[in-house]
Amino acid sequence: MTNQQQQLDRMFQALADGNRRAIIDRLSKSDAKVSDFAGQLGVSLPTVLQHLSVLEQAGLVSSRKVGRVRTCTLDTQALSRAEQWINERRNLWGRRLDALGVLLETDTGEQTHD
Amino acid sequence: MTNQQQQLDRMFQALADGNRRAIIDRLSKSDAKVSDFAGQLGVSLPTVLQHLSVLEQAGLVSSRKVGRVRTCTLDTQALSRAEQWINERRNLWGRRLDALGVLLETDTGEQTHD
Repeated sequence: MTNQQQQLDRMFQALADGNRRAIIDRLSKSDAKVSDFAGQLGVSLPTVLQHLSVLEQAGLVSSRKVGRVRTCTLDTQALSRAEQWINERRNLWGRRLDALGVLLETDTGEQTHD
Repeated sequence: MTNQQQQLDRMFQALADGNRRAIIDRLSKSDAKVSDFAGQLGVSLPTVLQHLSVLEQAGLVSSRKVGRVRTCTLDTQALSRAEQWINERRNLWGRRLDALGVLLETDTGEQTHD
């Protein structure tokens, strides 16, 4: 498996959990302290840390520690890559429908000449 | 957990596997028979059926059977929902950066008047 495939696996896996999506949702509005999430999600601090670890390994979130406080920030580059993968497949499908439209138009045109 | 959350869980979970992404990739170009995937992916037919089942449950792929041949097609509406979820979070982040830019500009403006 290539690195790129592994990265996509990890990103989509990280997004496949409501608590982890809630963390991303929160971080899209502003940076946040690790301790903020426990209250927001109604889960224990170890559970928050586990979710953050999955998000960090997927490259979706990074964190920095100042003194005893760890602050998290969203990495939108990784989020863009996941979005881009989906978007490219949707576009391919769209082009296929366009081509089908041209084909149908040509068919209709030919029928008119009959 | 709401239905919408469950649907997002299933969609991202379905996308978190290289073989399932390869099936989506293939279907973005044209519909395909179930038997086509075994050769393409180099896996057994039961494995293909298992992946297709995950994709169908996530609403990403649908299939129809004519005689003994089952043909699969991509459901781009579901793909759009996954893309939209990511896009909305990226946009929120973007607006936050814009707001920060305005704040910095205001600050610089104020300093000029000092």
